Order: sequence, then structure tokens, then C-alpha cells
Amino acid sequence: MSELFGPIVAAGPVRELTGDSSWLGALLETEAALALAEADAGVLDGGDAEAIVRACRADEVDVTRLGARATDVGNPAAPLVAELRERVPEHAAGSVHFGATSQDIVDTAAMLVATRACDAVAADLGSCAEAVAELAERHVDTVQVGRTLLQQAVPTTFGLTAAGWLSGLDRSAGTLRSARAQLAGQLGGPTGTLAALGTRGPAVLEAFCRRLGLAEPNLPWHTERSRMATLAAALGQVCGSVAAISRTLTLLAQNELAEVTEQGPPGSGGSSSMPHKQNPIAAVTALACARQAPGLVATLLTAMEQEHQRAAGSWHSEWRPLTELLRATGSAVHWLRESVRRIVVHEDRMLANLVAVGEEPVVGGRTGSAEIFVRRALEAHRGVRSGDAG
Amino acid sequence: MSELFGPIVAAGPVRELTGDSSWLGALLETEAALALAEADAGVLDGGDAEAIVRACRADEVDVTRLGARATDVGNPAAPLVAELRERVPEHAAGSVHFGATSQDIVDTAAMLVATRACDAVAADLGSCAEAVAELAERHVDTVQVGRTLLQQAVPTTFGLTAAGWLSGLDRSAGTLRSARAQLAGQLGGPTGTLAALGTRGPAVLEAFCRRLGLAEPNLPWHTERSRMATLAAALGQVCGSVAAISRTLTLLAQNELAEVTEQGPPGSGGSSSMPHKQNPIAAVTALACARQAPGLVATLLTAMEQEHQRAAGSWHSEWRPLTELLRATGSAVHWLRESVRRIVVHEDRMLANLVAVGEEPVVGGRTGSAEIFVRRALEAHRGVRSGDAG
Amino acid sequence: MSELFGPIVAAGPVRELTGDSSWLGALLETEAALALAEADAGVLDGGDAEAIVRACRADEVDVTRLGARATDVGNPAAPLVAELRERVPEHAAGSVHFGATSQDIVDTAAMLVATRACDAVAADLGSCAEAVAELAERHVDTVQVGRTLLQQAVPTTFGLTAAGWLSGLDRSAGTLRSARAQLAGQLGGPTGTLAALGTRGPAVLEAFCRRLGLAEPNLPWHTERSRMATLAAALGQVCGSVAAISRTLTLLAQNELAEVTEQGPPGSGGSSSMPHKQNPIAAVTALACARQAPGLVATLLTAMEQEHQRAAGSWHSEWRPLTELLRATGSAVHWLRESVRRIVVHEDRMLANLVAVGEEPVVGGRTGSAEIFVRRALEAHRGVRSGDAG
Amino acid sequence: MSELFGPIVAAGPVRELTGDSSWLGALLETEAALALAEADAGVLDGGDAEAIVRACRADEVDVTRLGARATDVGNPAAPLVAELRERVPEHAAGSVHFGATSQDIVDTAAMLVATRACDAVAADLGSCAEAVAELAERHVDTVQVGRTLLQQAVPTTFGLTAAGWLSGLDRSAGTLRSARAQLAGQLGGPTGTLAALGTRGPAVLEAFCRRLGLAEPNLPWHTERSRMATLAAALGQVCGSVAAISRTLTLLAQNELAEVTEQGPPGSGGSSSMPHKQNPIAAVTALACARQAPGLVATLLTAMEQEHQRAAGSWHSEWRPLTELLRATGSAVHWLRESVRRIVVHEDRMLANLVAVGEEPVVGGRTGSAEIFVRRALEAHRGVRSGDAG
Repeated sequence: MSELFGPIVAAGPVRELTGDSSWLGALLETEAALALAEADAGVLDGGDAEAIVRACRADEVDVTRLGARATDVGNPAAPLVAELRERVPEHAAGSVHFGATSQDIVDTAAMLVATRACDAVAADLGSCAEAVAELAERHVDTVQVGRTLLQQAVPTTFGLTAAGWLSGLDRSAGTLRSARAQLAGQLGGPTGTLAALGTRGPAVLEAFCRRLGLAEPNLPWHTERSRMATLAAALGQVCGSVAAISRTLTLLAQNELAEVTEQGPPGSGGSSSMPHKQNPIAAVTALACARQAPGLVATLLTAMEQEHQRAAGSWHSEWRPLTELLRATGSAVHWLRESVRRIVVHEDRMLANLVAVGEEPVVGGRTGSAEIFVRRALEAHRGVRSGDAG
Repeated sequence: MSELFGPIVAAGPVRELTGDSSWLGALLETEAALALAEADAGVLDGGDAEAIVRACRADEVDVTRLGARATDVGNPAAPLVAELRERVPEHAAGSVHFGATSQDIVDTAAMLVATRACDAVAADLGSCAEAVAELAERHVDTVQVGRTLLQQAVPTTFGLTAAGWLSGLDRSAGTLRSARAQLAGQLGGPTGTLAALGTRGPAVLEAFCRRLGLAEPNLPWHTERSRMATLAAALGQVCGSVAAISRTLTLLAQNELAEVTEQGPPGSGGSSSMPHKQNPIAAVTALACARQAPGLVATLLTAMEQEHQRAAGSWHSEWRPLTELLRATGSAVHWLRESVRRIVVHEDRMLANLVAVGEEPVVGGRTGSAEIFVRRALEAHRGVRSGDAG
Repeated sequence: MSELFGPIVAAGPVRELTGDSSWLGALLETEAALALAEADAGVLDGGDAEAIVRACRADEVDVTRLGARATDVGNPAAPLVAELRERVPEHAAGSVHFGATSQDIVDTAAMLVATRACDAVAADLGSCAEAVAELAERHVDTVQVGRTLLQQAVPTTFGLTAAGWLSGLDRSAGTLRSARAQLAGQLGGPTGTLAALGTRGPAVLEAFCRRLGLAEPNLPWHTERSRMATLAAALGQVCGSVAAISRTLTLLAQNELAEVTEQGPPGSGGSSSMPHKQNPIAAVTALACARQAPGLVATLLTAMEQEHQRAAGSWHSEWRPLTELLRATGSAVHWLRESVRRIVVHEDRMLANLVAVGEEPVVGGRTGSAEIFVRRALEAHRGVRSGDAG
Repeated sequence: MSELFGPIVAAGPVRELTGDSSWLGALLETEAALALAEADAGVLDGGDAEAIVRACRADEVDVTRLGARATDVGNPAAPLVAELRERVPEHAAGSVHFGATSQDIVDTAAMLVATRACDAVAADLGSCAEAVAELAERHVDTVQVGRTLLQQAVPTTFGLTAAGWLSGLDRSAGTLRSARAQLAGQLGGPTGTLAALGTRGPAVLEAFCRRLGLAEPNLPWHTERSRMATLAAALGQVCGSVAAISRTLTLLAQNELAEVTEQGPPGSGGSSSMPHKQNPIAAVTALACARQAPGLVATLLTAMEQEHQRAAGSWHSEWRPLTELLRATGSAVHWLRESVRRIVVHEDRMLANLVAVGEEPVVGGRTGSAEIFVRRALEAHRGVRSGDAG
């Protein structure tokens, strides 16, 4: 990952959680869990399984060497297996990766990387939503001119504006939670039959998934990529919610509107050429990150077209966009949370902009059900009301 | 819609369900439901509401004229409202579209069009899955060589191949069902406050959604487009499942493999220049339709970036890709069902191809847990087992 | 095509030029040109060719029936050939479509449709650029505050703003011209060898392309889709240029900036719920159309993956996005031209906004090389300076 | 960049050429060229310029620290300028980055990175095309069954198959060359006026571009991103050409066809679970890399929507997809070249497959103009014939 652009476009915990170390760790955990699950089911000798677990230590694997060897077969699992076989006692060598295929390991590791990244994104999303909920509550009576097609229309409240943002974040968080719960372990062997495990296949599969904390699939999904699509779509939806909010924040921060200002730490938001400027840089960065998603989701949806038992190319095409999408989403949420925490709301400007178009600032019936809607969004956020997911 | 290409790329019930008549009908139903809901809540006089309902007749509206007038304001709701106001008794004119904004009508109509198209797609998907389930059951013991990276690997069964397809179709159907349930009515007035309805906004909103059979949102979602994203993603996932299956079918139908043949009605699958050919044309068409999805999903995800109370451009950019995506998905499912119904499975060729690479046809332990996995997929299909959605 | 949404999202001459009649006409022209070219090369009898030409009359073909029959083979050329064979004297029946394959006809017709649509788009783009050039020239000294990251920065001129727009339109027009010149006829027969034409294949190919006004390819390009990619990319670039300008126009038209107003015909730009509003609806619509492009371009680039001699699915997946992309681009350009013609520039507001942030209105050195850059853009527009394409 | 997946998905020279060191080097070259160009034009003192050039040494800049500081302003140019100002003699500090804005530096550096990556891709593409040309020439008479819709059709030659690939590679190379020639330097100052340079702006711009070997733009292009679109589209087209060829190679390598085999170095193409397999892994990897392109191109086309003088988010959204697209393209070409060099053509199998469907192997007129088309493709490749670009 770039050290130069990474802090901007891959910010927050996802950066570490999707890096080489995390991927390597997940590959090793997967091989270890496979050995233990096979011992659980009586397929492997318990001592051999323990020897394999001991060999699955990340600090003994050189990622660069592994990556270089991966090109021979087109994925990093095969050379990792070769290394592990050299590192265990000779009698256990045949037990390493027993009955599995490379895709079992890489897919399961991808799911581990994804669950951890999703959990981190969800946590950041939660605290971002919390900050937005506070805005909605505090400004439930702050009248603001509503803008449609970028033209001033009739009044609304900033509380309702924020409640709309809250609703988007909460709904996207729900979608992400649901997608994450579907992330399952992968174990099928070369053609999805778990042939080498005889009738003990399902027992091993169950133990394997349980040990890794992943959902158990009914059958291998080597070329049935709906889980990947659901995950990609959820991340894309989170990014879309971030994009809508961050775009609106940058618009509200225009000097001519000046309804919010992003007040960052000293030095942030400056310009190399214009010291007087105060750019809403966290919102801008959130938007730039969020905009990565549609193209990446499209690539992952295209990759659903996988043929036969294991695909030639479509599968291999998933790793980059999955990793990038987790990063982009995590980074988008990170920066939006920063922006929301930094913003100062200028109620005087909201009032002034309203008056400027001839609207009277008095409200009452003027903002109709705005307050009710704000309350409903807050109740849904706090879980005392359904998120209207039907 | 094209009469020339439509039967290929927009086949099945979605063609009608997403056409101009369906859109117009949905717009009129929406205006009628609004009037009735407002009468329910005591906002409008019941007689006025009935007059509006009577005016909302599709056969009196010229779609071409409406479309031409729509360019003035950028959407078809405004000129429709103008027409309706002319058609009701003068005292009821002000009650037409009372308190609503154009986007309320167009968004709600879009949700009606989408729910009906989704229901039709779901029905076709169900019968397609049923046909695939029969294949899986019938061929639970039909040994086939597994192919990975387009190379022959070790045996599997055609039953397991079909079970994998079934799992994909069933999981995608589940995702679609969930997305469809989230489709909600839209009602917020110009800036989302329902200002004109005073404190009766929520009551009107409830009655409006109930009358139309749509979910009730907690608050207006003019610029919070997560429902659209969820719908787009579900349709994209269905298309991905279709693409994987149809691609594999075309590969299995290669003369050199000849494990399946698509046996269509007389005349289908022919070639203008080579009368001897038997092309798996339904599978090819299904694939061509399914491949429309990723780009359309990306466009709809990009459109989530909507600003302020109602957006300038992003909203307007949704209509085409939504309509096209419903058509592409319905058409993809339609053609896949056709293909699955048409295919003849050549067990002798499956055996011959297996033997050709030196594999013995005997199975037993050779196909490991294949049978168990097939049973699990069938049980999930019949609802007696969880679809492993975590 | 939708009568309801078409006037908005498929406006201008492309609507007609990409409709069923235009497609059907192009298919018939292609069959006619093939017959004549084969007569030119001595492959066919001249009388038979003339009979075929006479049969190629659009008014005798029922598009709906043709479309319905197209599903059997997956494209409309085969049933058209069958119809033509019935319509010519029996001795000429075998000469219809002689040596060709369906894809030859559909691809060539697509290129004809595309060239005509491109020419119309280029014409509209030219008059749009001309209107922008006038803005640049007229406002070469109109000082405006430059805005970066949506914050006021230091002065520029509205002339330079418009010159930037002009440069984008002119560069995109150049890209489109270059792509259009590459659109070639397709003629290869079933597997690209023109086997039925013996050694006269190249002569027929040359005459065929010459008669249709298309470029002559060195060899058939059934699965070599670079021309389609070049065309798609050029259209995508035109849309990108439109998007940048129309987005900026909507921002400049915000009430709080009010530097431009879109002054349309009476009734345009209004709102169904807020009569006082003046929405920049042409710019908004241009933006909505332009945003269709990236997803459509991605679909066409994905479709470049075509296998063997003629592809199963990728080829069939091109028709919809090609047609839609031509429409979206033509419509985007149409509406941008409308917007540019409608806008009123408010120099007083530009001055006021500048002063509001403490900038002195005096310019001189303050706008540096702005005037020189404007002149260069105008010279490039008038062809007296290179468009700096290297 | 990932050490684990990089050798697969970011292979070949682009990996280094798009890495942090290359980006940092390009940023420093840009600041140095700016100083020298300003000295050329008499804007800066020559001694100060030399001091700046001396300070622009990559080995003194810590990329990690620079990246961390970049988040304050949203790009790495501003903290780099701050570092350079500390490193030059005090009297020269004000001359660093004089009159420029961050985007001038980052855009120009991006163009430098892109030109170098494009040159490397073009070189690999050239040697890949050369290897394909040899195949076309050697197999001009090797008869092969043509396959359409994945079904056997009528004969062609493998020479013509390869000639079609050659044509695609050569045309895409031409598109890439043209796009690369348009890559221009960026210099406009905060709002594109080069205000600080007074009337000497154009002279500085000319010297700046000349010193860096980039095209000179007529005016700054901060929000006119047609060059980026042209570059993205060209890279996308190269990837599409690679995808078509690599997909076909994997199909020809199916055991049941066995017309080509990929014969890599010992160990390559193996499987972790099935030692007997010989996967066409270079072709599979090329395909996986090529499939990254459509989504990335869509992201860059979407990013053309840039507002005012410098954009809030769209600009920042370009860096990741540009870098990733250069990598994906370079890697796709790298692996395709590997695959083409590795493949062994099995003429006996081509003959056997042809006979299997009842075709006689004799050709003569049977392959029509195939030989002529092969010659034309070879002549175009050698530059003695136009690449039929119209």
C-alpha cells in the first residue's frame, strides 16, 4: 500500500487490517483451523494438527518471497503450503492442507480479512452516526432553507437534514451487518466434493467454520459468489451514504452559504498557495474515497461470472477490488466521522440565508412534520423503532 | 423500448411491467392514493378525493404529450398534475397533489414499478430454480469431471454442479426478496417536512404507503437513496448468478465437451450461415442480458451522491438505469429458465470425458460429500434448511 | 424508447437516429450494399443484386415481427435475411446475404447507426462550443472569484472559466471525430475467412465499405472490438466534458452565488410545488444524461473480451449499451447547448461575490495570464492553433 | 503495494514505475523543473533555482512522513513544499513552488508517472505483438476449426486467429501512443491564471513542459480532465485486447480441445492439490489483470465532473484509479506476453478437432481470404500498411 497516498485514501483501521500482514495471518489461521477441524473430526492425528498449528506462525514467513513464488500457480496458498510442509515434522507433512485446494484457503482468508475490516468499518460508522445523531437532536429547531436542484426552496430544519444523514448511515450499517453475517468459510477440495475427507466432509466443514467464527455454508461456493456480491454491495452502499453527506457538507461550507465550517486541528484545511483558505478537507477526502466504490463494486459483480468448479480468471480478479473496496469504505467512513466531529454549525448564517430569499424565520407549522421525522430517525438509531426495512 | 432488440434484451414480463403504460399507471395510482390518504387523515374532503381518483385514468392521458411537456421542469409529474387539475371540478383542483412535490410522485411510482417487476422476476427465478433443483436431484449420482481453471481436475457430479447453481439462484432470490420489502413510499413535500400537512403528515404518510402496499419510511428519503442501492445491488446479484450458470452452460455445450445440448423449439439455435449448428442461444442471450448489470448498478450507486433536500441531476439520472436494470434482470432470468428447460444432459459424454483423462468412472468415496451437499442445497431450496445466510 | 422519459433522457436528433427505424434502415442498407459490392466484384449477377436492392425496403418490413423472430437465433439479421429471400425472385434468393454471417450485417448496421449519431452529436457539440466561445470572448475581462475545493480563492475571469469549458468541448470533439473515422464495415463470413467469396473477398470488402462510407478494415474484427472501445471512450469523454460544465453551471446558479441564471422559454425551470423557483433545468438534465456514460462505457469495455471467431454473449451484450450511450451523449450535448444558450451572466454578482471576500475588484496583473489563455483557447477553437494534442 | 499479491496483479515494470519512489521522484522533478523554468523566463534568480534543484533530492525525503502530513491539506504537494522551503537557503525559500498550486505539482507528477508507465507498457505490448506476429506468420496455413457461440462452425486458420489478436494489440498500441502524446504539464497557480507570474506565465509554462518532456497545454486544465479520460480509455482498450486473447487462449487450452498448451518454467501452472494439472496460468493471470480495467476507467470518467477552478473531491479521487489502472494494464500485458511466449501450438489437435465434426482437412478455397488477411495484419504491424484507423 502506498505510504504517500495511503494516509489519505486508505485511512483508519482498514489500512492495517487489509495489509499484507493481515492477509498472511489470515492464510495461516485458515491452515491452522483446517488442521484442528480435521483433528476434531478424526481425520487427522491430533499431534500432527498441533504441529501444523505451531508451524503457522507469521513471523517465520517472508511475505515477499511468498508473493514471488505465488506467480507460478497464480495464488499465494500453494507456496505457503509448500513452506508449511517443510516446517513440520516429516510425518505431518502430508497432513498440511489435507483435502483442501488453494481456493479454500484464499477464499476463507479473504472472508477473515473482510469480517475484521467490516467490524472496524461498522464501529467507525457507529460513532459517526452517533455524532450525526447529536447534530440532529441539537438542531431539531434550527431552521434552514431547504435547497432543491441547488436552488433555495422552502424552509426545513438542520435537524431534519441531519436526521436524513443519520437514516442513511443507519440503514447502510444494517446492510453491512447483514452482509458480514453471511461471510462463510470455504472448504470443498479441488472440485467441491471434499473427496479426500470421505463422509467426514461436513463435520470438518462445520468445525472449520466454527473455529474461525465464520458462517457455515451448505455447500462449497467456489463459483457461487453471492456472498462476495452481497459484501461488495453493502460496502458500496455505505460509500454512497458517505458521498451524499460529504457532498452536502462541502456545499454548506461554501463561503456564500457558510452554514457549516470544518474546524480541524491546526494546519488542516489549509492551502499551499492561499493561507486564508479553510477547506473542508475531511469532507472532501471522504467524498474522494467514497467515489472509488461504484467501479469496484462493478468489477466484483462482473467477477460473479465464474465457470465450472473453479474459475479461470474471474476468481483471481477479486482480490484487488475486494481489498481496495474495504480500504476505500473504511477510509470514507473515517474521514466523514472526522468531518462531522469537526464541523461548526452557524445558526446565524442559516437564519440569514433564509431571510435573504424573503422567507420569514418564524416556523411553527412552517416546518411541518420535521420534528416528528427527526424523532423517528433518532428512535430508529437507538433501536427503539424499526429502521423501516419492511 | 425497442421492438427490434427488445424481445432479446428485454424479454419476459418485465418488458410490459417497465414500459410507458406501467409507469404512467403508477404515477396515476400514486396521485390517487395521495388524495385518498389525505382524505383518510381529514386533510382533504372525501368528495374531492373521489373526484381526483376518477381523474386518474390512464386512458385519458397521452403519454407522448406528457413526455414532451416533462422537459420544462425535468420530470413528468408536474405536467401530469397540471392535466389532472384541469380534469377535476374546479373546487377540487387545489386538492390535486396537495402538499406533495414532483419527486414524491416519481419516486413512489418508481417503487411501484419496481415492486411489480421484482415480483415477476422473483416468480421466474423461482421456476428457474425449481427446474435446476430437478436437475440436481436427477443427477445426484451422475459423475462428471470437475474442471478448474478450464482444465480437467478430479471427479464431481453433475448433481453437485447443479446444486451450486441452485444455491446461487436461491441466495439471490433471498436478497431480492429482502430488497423488495424495503421499497417504501415517498412523501415529503418540497423540502421533506410535509409542511402543508401540518401535524397530519405522518398519518397521511402511513395511509399513503398502506394503500399502495409499500413500506412506510420513518422519514422522507429524497436524497437518502439506500433503498435504490439495495434494490440495484439485489438485481445485480441475480444477474451475477445467471451469468455464472449461463456461462457454464455454454461451455458444457461446446462440441468437444457436449455434456449438455440446448434443445429449443424448431428453428431456435440455428445460424444464418451454418444450418448444421445448434447454438445454446437461450444461455447465450441470458448471459448477454446478465452482463448489463454491473455498469447499471455502478450508475445507480454513483447516483447515491445526492445533495441538500433534493438533488440536481443525481436523482434524474436514476430513471434510465433503474428501468434498464429491471429489464436486463428479468430478461436474464427469463432466458436462463428457457435454457434450463431446454437442456438435454448427456451422461454418456460426461462419462466419456471423465475416462478420457484417465479417471475411473467408479465413484463411491471418489465424489466425497457431493451427495450430502446436493441434499443440503435441495433442503435449503425447499425451506427446510436455512439458506446459510448466517 | 420511452415516450415518457425519452424527451428528457434521449433528447435531440439521436433519439430518431438510434430508434428502430434507423436500425432497420441500416440493416437493409447493409444487405443492399453487400449485394452491390458482390456484383461490383463479379461474385453476383448484377440483376440479382438489383433485385436484392429493391427488396431492401424498410416500409415492407414489420419491425415487431422481425424482433419477435430474432429470439430464435439471438439476432435480427437472420430473420431479415429469411424475409428478403422470400421477397426476391427465386433465382436471386441464394444471392441474398451471400457469403456473409449475421454478425457482418448487425455490426455494419451498428457502425452506420453510430456514424450518423456521431455526426449529429458532433454538430450539436460544435454549436454548443460556439456558444461557449462567445461567452469566453465576451467575458474576457469579467472578473470572477476563483473557487477551489468549493471555497473562494483568488480572482480569475469568467472568460477563462468559459475558455476552460471550450477547451474541454473542443478536445472531446476531436476525440469523437477520430473515433468516428475508425468505424469500419464488417465482412468476414461465418469464421472471418470470407470462404464463400474465394479470392474475391478483399475486393468485395473494399466495395462494401466504400459504398457505405465506412472505413475498410484490414481484416474482419468479429472478436477484435477496439473500434467499439474507441467509440465508447470518445462518447464517454464527451459526456465527461458536459458533466463538468453543467455541474459548474448549476453551482454558479445557486441563489447565494447567482452569477448565472438559466433563462428558458416560459414555463421551463419551474417547480410543481414552488412557483417562485427558477431551476437551471437544462443544465440539470444535461448532467443527468452525462452521468449515464461511465457505466455504459464500462459495459462496452467488458464486452471486448470476445472469444474464438465469434463470441457467445459478449457480442450480444453490446447492442443495448451502444444504443443507450449514443442517446445519453446526444442528449447531454443537446441539453448543455440549451443551457448555454439560455444563461444570463450576472457581472454585478460576480463583482459582489469577489468584494464580499475582501478582494479588490481591480485586476490588471491580478488575473495574470487569463486573457492570453482565453485567446489561445479561442484560436484552438477556430483551428488557427493546435488543440495541444501533442 | 502488496508484496503478497503484487507479483501477480501488478507484475512487470509498472510495479516499480508506479510505486511511492516513482511518485516522489516525479513530484521533486516537477518542483525542480518549475524553478528552472522560472529562471529561464527571468522570474526567479538562477542561483535560487539551482538551490531548489539541489534540494529536490528524493533520498532526503521520508515518504512515510510526507504521506502522514498530506492528510492536513488533502494532497502530498503542500507538505513537500514546506520541506523544500526548510532545506533551501532562507533567501530562496519564497522561490520554492513560486506561483504554483498543489494541483500543478501533483497533476504534472501524475503525468510523468503515467508517461513512464505507458512507455514501459508500450514496450511490452510491442514485444507481445511481435510474438503474436510470429505465430500468425508461422501458422498461416495451419487449419483450425472456427468456433462461433462456442460451437464448431467452419474452418479458419490459426494464422488468421493470431492475426486478429495482432490487429487488436497493434490498434490498442496506437491508441495508447496517441493518448500518451497528449499528456501535458499542468501549471496555472491557484485559479488557473498564473497571476503571480504576470505576463511571463506562458513563457514559464512552455519551459516547464519542455524541460519535463510533456506536451504544452494551451491553458491550465485543472478541471478539464480530457487528457485523463483519453489515457484511461487507452489503457482500458489495451486491457480489452488482452482479455480477448487471454480468454481465447484459456479456451484453446481446455483438455478437450488441447490446441495450445502453456509450457511455462518448471513449477509454473501446477496445482496445490492436483499435481497432474498444467494450468495456462499466465493467460489466466493476464485475464484477471485485464478485468480490473472497466471499473477503473468508469471511476476516472466519473471523475471528469470537476467544478469551478479546482474540484472538491473529484480530483482527489483520480490518484488511486490512475495508479491501479497503470498497474493492471502493465501487468495484463506482461502476463499475456509470458503466455504467448510459453504456448505450444498443437497442429495435430487442430486437425483432429476439425475432422471430428466432419470437416475435411483440405483447405484451398475453404479458408477463403484468410491468408490475405494475415498478410495485411502483418503489413500493418510492420508499418508498411495503415492500421486502418481511417
